[in-house]
Amino acid sequence: MSNLDKALAYAAANQEANLNELIDLLRIPSVSTQPERAKDVQAAAHQVVHILTQAGLENVRLIPTPLHPLVYGDWLHAGPDKPTLLIYGHYDVQPAEPFDAWESPPFEPTIRDNYLYARGSSDDKGQTHLNIKAVEAYLKGAGTLPLNVKFIIEGEEEIGGPSLEQFIPANQSLLQADVALVSDTAMVSSSQPSLVYGLRGLYAFFLDVTGPDHDLHSGAYGGAVNNPINALAHIISQLKDGEGKVLIPGFYDRVRPLSDEERGLLAQYPRDDARVQKETGAPQIWGEAKFTLNERMGARPTLDVNGIIGGYTEVGTKNIIPSTVHAKLSIRLVPDQDPGEIAHLVQQYIQQIAPPSVKVQISSRGGAPASITDFSIPAMQAARQALAHVFGREPILMREGGSIPVVGAFQEHLGMETILMGFGLPDDRIHSPNERFYLPNYTRGTETVIRFLAAYGG
Amino acid sequence: MSNLDKALAYAAANQEANLNELIDLLRIPSVSTQPERAKDVQAAAHQVVHILTQAGLENVRLIPTPLHPLVYGDWLHAGPDKPTLLIYGHYDVQPAEPFDAWESPPFEPTIRDNYLYARGSSDDKGQTHLNIKAVEAYLKGAGTLPLNVKFIIEGEEEIGGPSLEQFIPANQSLLQADVALVSDTAMVSSSQPSLVYGLRGLYAFFLDVTGPDHDLHSGAYGGAVNNPINALAHIISQLKDGEGKVLIPGFYDRVRPLSDEERGLLAQYPRDDARVQKETGAPQIWGEAKFTLNERMGARPTLDVNGIIGGYTEVGTKNIIPSTVHAKLSIRLVPDQDPGEIAHLVQQYIQQIAPPSVKVQISSRGGAPASITDFSIPAMQAARQALAHVFGREPILMREGGSIPVVGAFQEHLGMETILMGFGLPDDRIHSPNERFYLPNYTRGTETVIRFLAAYGG
Repeated sequence: MSNLDKALAYAAANQEANLNELIDLLRIPSVSTQPERAKDVQAAAHQVVHILTQAGLENVRLIPTPLHPLVYGDWLHAGPDKPTLLIYGHYDVQPAEPFDAWESPPFEPTIRDNYLYARGSSDDKGQTHLNIKAVEAYLKGAGTLPLNVKFIIEGEEEIGGPSLEQFIPANQSLLQADVALVSDTAMVSSSQPSLVYGLRGLYAFFLDVTGPDHDLHSGAYGGAVNNPINALAHIISQLKDGEGKVLIPGFYDRVRPLSDEERGLLAQYPRDDARVQKETGAPQIWGEAKFTLNERMGARPTLDVNGIIGGYTEVGTKNIIPSTVHAKLSIRLVPDQDPGEIAHLVQQYIQQIAPPSVKVQISSRGGAPASITDFSIPAMQAARQALAHVFGREPILMREGGSIPVVGAFQEHLGMETILMGFGLPDDRIHSPNERFYLPNYTRGTETVIRFLAAYGG
Repeated sequence: MSNLDKALAYAAANQEANLNELIDLLRIPSVSTQPERAKDVQAAAHQVVHILTQAGLENVRLIPTPLHPLVYGDWLHAGPDKPTLLIYGHYDVQPAEPFDAWESPPFEPTIRDNYLYARGSSDDKGQTHLNIKAVEAYLKGAGTLPLNVKFIIEGEEEIGGPSLEQFIPANQSLLQADVALVSDTAMVSSSQPSLVYGLRGLYAFFLDVTGPDHDLHSGAYGGAVNNPINALAHIISQLKDGEGKVLIPGFYDRVRPLSDEERGLLAQYPRDDARVQKETGAPQIWGEAKFTLNERMGARPTLDVNGIIGGYTEVGTKNIIPSTVHAKLSIRLVPDQDPGEIAHLVQQYIQQIAPPSVKVQISSRGGAPASITDFSIPAMQAARQALAHVFGREPILMREGGSIPVVGAFQEHLGMETILMGFGLPDDRIHSPNERFYLPNYTRGTETVIRFLAAYGG
């Protein structure tokens, strides 16, 4: 029996125990953006330390940061002629609000119809966990690994990963590896695997607009005092046009034009308006007329208001000119836009268009560049082979619209490419109520990672 | 000793008891727009019934409506050759949110530096109460009144008075009088009285914009699905321009042009940018360049977003395309704009500019026309005389920017003019935290109304 077969057998024999361990991790509401959840985030980090230790990893430790801890572990006994793989994941999750939109509570994992429902089940606790379980299957089943492995698991991915961003350049030798593996993306469908070679970047900011220093009677002062909500609407309406083109001067200056080869690759992804409409329930699919749906969803920058609140928001009416309004915005970036430069352009433009009758404050909430992986490298070939074996179909190479800030940082500071081999599905409802993970993908994902380790380690 | 002197003496002797009775009324949080306060609104109505009865009024009763009760009372023994006065007031108040912005709790009336602080102290429980106390001073001090008096006091003024609007045309003989008296406005300053001869009308509506049927990951779907908050910002930005001109086609068609005489009257009100800036704390005074400050604040229509909420509004960031956003808007109308016609224009225009990639729902929240009072009538002369006597200065005739829907209804259904003799001050912070009533105006207001009854009754 080969070491690969031993690892596969071990994983098969431990399916139920693995799932139960994941369910326990999902019970912890490790919402990184909510200060009142800080202790839960900490508890989830300790749980990950425990899981890595039990899996047979060495040097396992919790690394404190100014915010939420990192977790590290490694196994480096495959020898210097074998490659070293850095596996990244995150144990923090998005907020679960609104709670009443969940069919079962977000932090009480529930299995229905072959899906595991819980916040974080797909993004990213479930996918992080199956990577650990694949490594464990080798270590426990075969007593060894075909390559050297390091794990770095963070608790701030959903807030842009500020601590890891600092940690990577300061700890290059600890994290140095030949390639990184990240499972934090979705496949095309349960029968069609994919490998993501491009990700969008992100720049997030808050806009606070203040008019009078207290709420005013709109009859008494209407006509003399500008309304901060109306003023904010004017500002937002000047940030992008009705079909989604961003109007900030200089915004597109560094956008790398799509080559014909890339447009061809992007066209392979089987997606059309009807499918996206069904997934989202939107009244109509929308966007820049000059680009295809796949190009708009993965290879074009966007700008969205994520939330807004101001004035009287209780039941009924209240005829006021409110004092203030708050909006949260984010921009998805593509290669070669620079988050710092975009932040500067946003700041400059908004200050220029803001009327002097209101005060506008822009608070930067961090950013990360977009990334593109060279798909000719050996690890990419190993990933294609593993996915093709388990799912019976060649993976589609694609770009995804989301942002995984760490991928850009690996490229910049460690000169390292990342394999984005995800096992989520497009209708997993990540970041939404009723997030779920397709259970057959949990098992197949574990098997795929085991086969990837074998193929890449040689 | 004349009956007038007896009434004045009675009022002077009962100042403290009157104030304590008002304080008890202010303790009741009769917020008409909040369904959970319905019982408090009911309790305030019963309290008003009690106060009218104690004052010596007859036929005092609570009149149920589909929402909050009306309170009626009268004294009709002055004889048919004497005029009949209808005194109107309202016992409901605006919401007090945000509670933490109040220096003392809104429903625990507190006296500081000659001001009585409480929600409703100025708008309008305090002013309604002093009218009742003036009539009581005559009835109890002199045993009679120099004219016939009816009271109608409502509990829905802050939500546009829908029940009274139905009640007036259906109960014309009950309410019929020669003129109405309303104390629900502000003077120029504590030393400069005024009489309001014009009020703006109101049309309020809600806008709900829905995109996808659940919150989406803004990376996964950004570029393919329109964002309802961005779409709403585009709609709001097309409702009025940056200096306040409303862009809805037909909106100004019926606006009565300002005559030179009116522009002259409006110019008498001593107000400038610096004063309004101090009162409001706005960074800059603002509005239509073609009109003066007084014209913009009283004689021009306006459009304001009163509140907005949508998407993620908790602490931190959440990178979503939200499913839905809700906005509350209101329009201040001037003669001769018609609320029903304006509602139609708003509906038509928004449906026309709304993109098909979102669903827009417009919910009408009622309206009332603007009003203008003929200032040559005898009751207006009596009011000028009473104010001049008590405050030592001729009142300024002015138009006010707020809306008192009932004034238009009195004009339309009872053919009756209204005397708007208010004792509030511009910095009473009505509709805002820390609403207050200047206590010397409570006493002087009572005396003024007593002298008005004498002068008008003859």
